[in-house]
Amino acid sequence: MKKLINDPSKVVDEAVAGIAAAHPELRVIVDPPYVIARGDAPVQGKVGLVSGGGSGHEPLHGGFVGYGMLDAAVPGAVFTSPTPDPIVEATKAVDGGAGVLHIVKNYTGDVLNFETAADLALAEGIEVEAVVIDDDVAVQDSLYTAGRRGVAGTLLVEKIAGAAAERGDALAQVAEIARTVNANVRSMGMALSPCTVPHAGEPSFDLGDDEIEIGIGIHGEPGRARIAMEPADAIVDRLLAPILDDLPFASGDRVLLFVNGMGGTPLVELYVVFRRAAEVLASRGIEVARTLVGSYVTSLEMQGCSISVLRLDDALTELWDAPVQTPALRWGR
Amino acid sequence: MKKLINDPSKVVDEAVAGIAAAHPELRVIVDPPYVIARGDAPVQGKVGLVSGGGSGHEPLHGGFVGYGMLDAAVPGAVFTSPTPDPIVEATKAVDGGAGVLHIVKNYTGDVLNFETAADLALAEGIEVEAVVIDDDVAVQDSLYTAGRRGVAGTLLVEKIAGAAAERGDALAQVAEIARTVNANVRSMGMALSPCTVPHAGEPSFDLGDDEIEIGIGIHGEPGRARIAMEPADAIVDRLLAPILDDLPFASGDRVLLFVNGMGGTPLVELYVVFRRAAEVLASRGIEVARTLVGSYVTSLEMQGCSISVLRLDDALTELWDAPVQTPALRWGR
Repeated sequence: MKKLINDPSKVVDEAVAGIAAAHPELRVIVDPPYVIARGDAPVQGKVGLVSGGGSGHEPLHGGFVGYGMLDAAVPGAVFTSPTPDPIVEATKAVDGGAGVLHIVKNYTGDVLNFETAADLALAEGIEVEAVVIDDDVAVQDSLYTAGRRGVAGTLLVEKIAGAAAERGDALAQVAEIARTVNANVRSMGMALSPCTVPHAGEPSFDLGDDEIEIGIGIHGEPGRARIAMEPADAIVDRLLAPILDDLPFASGDRVLLFVNGMGGTPLVELYVVFRRAAEVLASRGIEVARTLVGSYVTSLEMQGCSISVLRLDDALTELWDAPVQTPALRWGR
Repeated sequence: MKKLINDPSKVVDEAVAGIAAAHPELRVIVDPPYVIARGDAPVQGKVGLVSGGGSGHEPLHGGFVGYGMLDAAVPGAVFTSPTPDPIVEATKAVDGGAGVLHIVKNYTGDVLNFETAADLALAEGIEVEAVVIDDDVAVQDSLYTAGRRGVAGTLLVEKIAGAAAERGDALAQVAEIARTVNANVRSMGMALSPCTVPHAGEPSFDLGDDEIEIGIGIHGEPGRARIAMEPADAIVDRLLAPILDDLPFASGDRVLLFVNGMGGTPLVELYVVFRRAAEVLASRGIEVARTLVGSYVTSLEMQGCSISVLRLDDALTELWDAPVQTPALRWGR
C-alpha cells in the first residue's frame, strides 16, 4: 500500500486539519469532529444544511461547505458512517431557528445514525427533516444498503437545496426541493481498478488486468457485471442506457450531465467520457443544458467514473445557477 | 493498460471535443487544434495570453482558458509539444493589437516550437513576448530540458499574468510580472506510481512496491532519488527543504502554498500533505497567505504530488485575488 498518509488511523483527522489549513473560510471542530462554515453560522432564520458520511469521498462532503451549499459536514472514518454525536453537534451549531435539513446517502449506517441524531436534536427543540439520496441505478440492494445506494447525485442535491436555503425557503420547502432533485437524478459508475482503505492495507476487491466492474459502488461494492475491458465509448453506453431507461428520460428533456471521476482517474479521460455521453444524449433528443466534469464524489484512489443525469426544470436550473462559494464548487459570487 | 479511452491516437482530439461539450464558454478550433475563449476574443487593446504544451497535464492548459487567465491554449499530443502552426494560429486569434504573451514551460520542444511560432507571428506584424517557466528545483537538466523544468508553478504564472492583462497592462509589463512570478516560485514533485502514455501502452518507468521517486518530472522523468516508501510527513519535508533553501524563502515571507496532485492522487491525501506543509512553513516563520489544493498540473494517472511555494508581495497578491473564470479555476466573478 503506497499512500500519502502517516498513521492509517489518523488519515481523517490529518486530512480535516489540512482542510482547515487550506480553507480559512471553514472552521473545524475537533471533538466531536465536524466542518462548519466560518463566521456567521448559524445564520438566523436560514434553514441549516448538514450532510456527512464516511471519509474517502473527498471533496464530498467537507469541500461543499460554504455559501449556497452545506452549513456543516460530518466526516466519519474512511468508508464508515459518522456516529450520531457529531451529527447532533453539527445540527445544533447550524440551527438558526428555521430548522435543519439532513442530507443522507442511503447506506444503512448513515441512515441509522442520522435518524438517531435527528431524534436527539428534536429532543433539544430543533426541527429536523431528512432526505435520503438513492440515485444509483446499478443495483437494488447492496452490501451496505437496503434499496438503492446514494452516490454522485448527492452533490446535485446539496447544491440545489443549498441554494433554496440561501434564498430563504422554509424547511419543508427545502426538503421538498431536495426530494425533487433526488427523484429526477439517476447515476451509475464503473471501476478500472479497486481502492485500498488505509487501515485495511489491501485492495477492497480484485480486478484482473483486463477486467472492469460496471455498476461499482463508491466503496467498491459489487455492481452489475464484471466484464472485459472495453473502449470508453462502449463503457459510456453501458452506463447511460440503464440511467436513461430508469427515470425514464425522454426526448425533449433538458438535463444536467455530470461526469464524475472516482479519485484516481485523470481529467483527460473524464473529458473523453463526457464527449461520448453528450453525443448519446443528443442522439436521444435530450438537451444538455448544464454540465459538470471532475472528481467530486470519489472512492479514494479508485480509477473509474460515474455518470449522473438530472432532469431540469426552470426552478431547478435557477437554483443550480445560483451563487455558490465552497472549496470545491464555486461560481457566481 | 486500462484507460477510459478509445483509440490511443485519438485521445487528445476526443478530450478536446469533451472540453468543448462540457464548457460552452470555450471554443475549440479543430484544424490546427487549439482552445480559445468564446465570444469576444480577441479583446481589442488587451494583451493576449497563449500557453500550451503536451497533453496529459489537464486541466493545464485548456482548463485555464477564460476571463482573467489564458486567451488560448494549444494542446500537443500526449507529453509532446504542439507544432508551431497551431501556436501561430492561436496567437493571431487572440491578438487584439496589444501583442501576445507566450507562457512556455521549459522543455526543449516547447521552447523551440514557441520560438518558431513567435517568429512567424512577428512576420505577420504581431508583437510577441515569451516567458519560459522553470520552477522545478529537483534537477538542473533533465531528459527533455536544458536547465530546470517548468511544472506546477506555470499555473500561478498564468493566473497572475492573466489578471495583469485583464487589468489592461501593456505587453512588456505583463511579461515582467510573469517573470517575477517565475523568479519567486519554487516547486518539487514526487511519484508513488508511474503513468502510461496511451500510445506507448506501458508504464513510462517502473517503481517497486515499496519505492517512490523524489523529484519526479511531470512526464515521469527521473528526479533526485528513488527511495523506500515513507510517511507523508517525511515526504513533505523532503520536498519542502530544497524548495525553501533554493530561493531562499525566509522568516517573515508571505507565500502562496500550492499542493498539487499528479492526477491519480485522492484529494484526501493532498490535504494530509497540505497540513504538514503548512506546519513546516509556520515553523520557519513563513506566513501562508494564500492556498491552492487540487490536481491542476497532472501527469495522466500518476499517483503523487508536488508542492509549489510562491513568495508574494502586495502586487502579486492583488493579481492572484483578481476575478478569474475558467473551467478549472474560478472565483470573484
